[in-house]
Amino acid sequence: MRPWVFLNISASLDGKISNETRKQLRISCKEDLERVDRLRASADAIMVGIGTVLADNPKLNVKNKDLREKRLCEGKSENPLKIIVDSKCRIPENAEVFDGEVIVAVSKLAKKEDIDRISKKARVVVFGEDKVDLKALLEFLYERGVRRLMVEGGGTLVSSLLKEGLIDEIFIYYGPMIIGGSNSPTICDGRSFSPPIKVDILSIQRLGEGILLHLKVLSNDHRSE
Amino acid sequence: MRPWVFLNISASLDGKISNETRKQLRISCKEDLERVDRLRASADAIMVGIGTVLADNPKLNVKNKDLREKRLCEGKSENPLKIIVDSKCRIPENAEVFDGEVIVAVSKLAKKEDIDRISKKARVVVFGEDKVDLKALLEFLYERGVRRLMVEGGGTLVSSLLKEGLIDEIFIYYGPMIIGGSNSPTICDGRSFSPPIKVDILSIQRLGEGILLHLKVLSNDHRSE
Repeated sequence: MRPWVFLNISASLDGKISNETRKQLRISCKEDLERVDRLRASADAIMVGIGTVLADNPKLNVKNKDLREKRLCEGKSENPLKIIVDSKCRIPENAEVFDGEVIVAVSKLAKKEDIDRISKKARVVVFGEDKVDLKALLEFLYERGVRRLMVEGGGTLVSSLLKEGLIDEIFIYYGPMIIGGSNSPTICDGRSFSPPIKVDILSIQRLGEGILLHLKVLSNDHRSE
Repeated sequence: MRPWVFLNISASLDGKISNETRKQLRISCKEDLERVDRLRASADAIMVGIGTVLADNPKLNVKNKDLREKRLCEGKSENPLKIIVDSKCRIPENAEVFDGEVIVAVSKLAKKEDIDRISKKARVVVFGEDKVDLKALLEFLYERGVRRLMVEGGGTLVSSLLKEGLIDEIFIYYGPMIIGGSNSPTICDGRSFSPPIKVDILSIQRLGEGILLHLKVLSNDHRSE
């Protein structure tokens, strides 16, 4: 038993989520940022990889006050629970994400001193030997009441989740731009899939200046090359 | 004066044109292959980078007999002229592309023995010091009567052309799949652009199992990072 997992990501038309310096770029338009905020407010928890925390230092909070109040009225926390996948426990103590309830998932590779350091800011859970056992983590989150889990990247976490068949639904917003770069992070990094992971294109719509795609992941057993 | 340049490329939804082994993958559906064939038949010349020749060994011919006959009736050659951008003249003599009229564009880095070897199969032209001077090549093609130039990748050539403001229009067919892989070739490789290259999304349509986008390149002066 695991939560329903949906990925939301914004990218350039060539699939890049940032440029080669990994500097945060404005890819989304206003309309898309509002959509992402509603999606966040609908989630029980939001998950990102440590790479995204280190590159963008996101808060991962719901921005719209009305949406936060609606959550409170429904007996939920103001913001969804935040989950950081961070095998080696590299997250800095002053990361912006440490505002509200946070779980940092690490592997047995994480040093005790780092776990102790971060335990003051968040709950640290250990799953897996050299990288976080995502299936075990998702089961743990389900037991804790998480039914709708939103994943917001980056490309390495997305690759690991897809590889293990742990993503059900995908929203991709493509901004009207080409970022380029053979070293730029993309929607899905890691090792390539062979065969590719098949998806069903549920809907396509123009949103602001870009395009929003809604996908359903079809095939769920893959191996990396 | 240069030809009107349009890029046509098929990619996965995460922007990959192949997997990390660069093995040719079937991304396009039947409907898209027919569209690409019509686009080829409409071009005066088709350009690809050497990476694509080495990975896929394409013929780059018009497949549909009626389209070839129509070209002949219009006083054109059966197939468009083929242009290979190959700075070091690495193309093998037995490449499938050597069927019909071919120009291999090399730089001054190319060895005389390689130029002599390939001159038996194609016209070899030298533009640029350590890589092919694409502007000069396009001017040369224009003088030779090429007005509509179709570029079919790969990501390195696309990046160089975009960087120099030499692409006017882009068609991207996205197949319903995720290929993944931080080392997989993408729609636009090379160095990333800063700022990103802006495009106007002229149209979006479902085509077969995938999506076809038609883009106009807006900003034309860029530098790589």
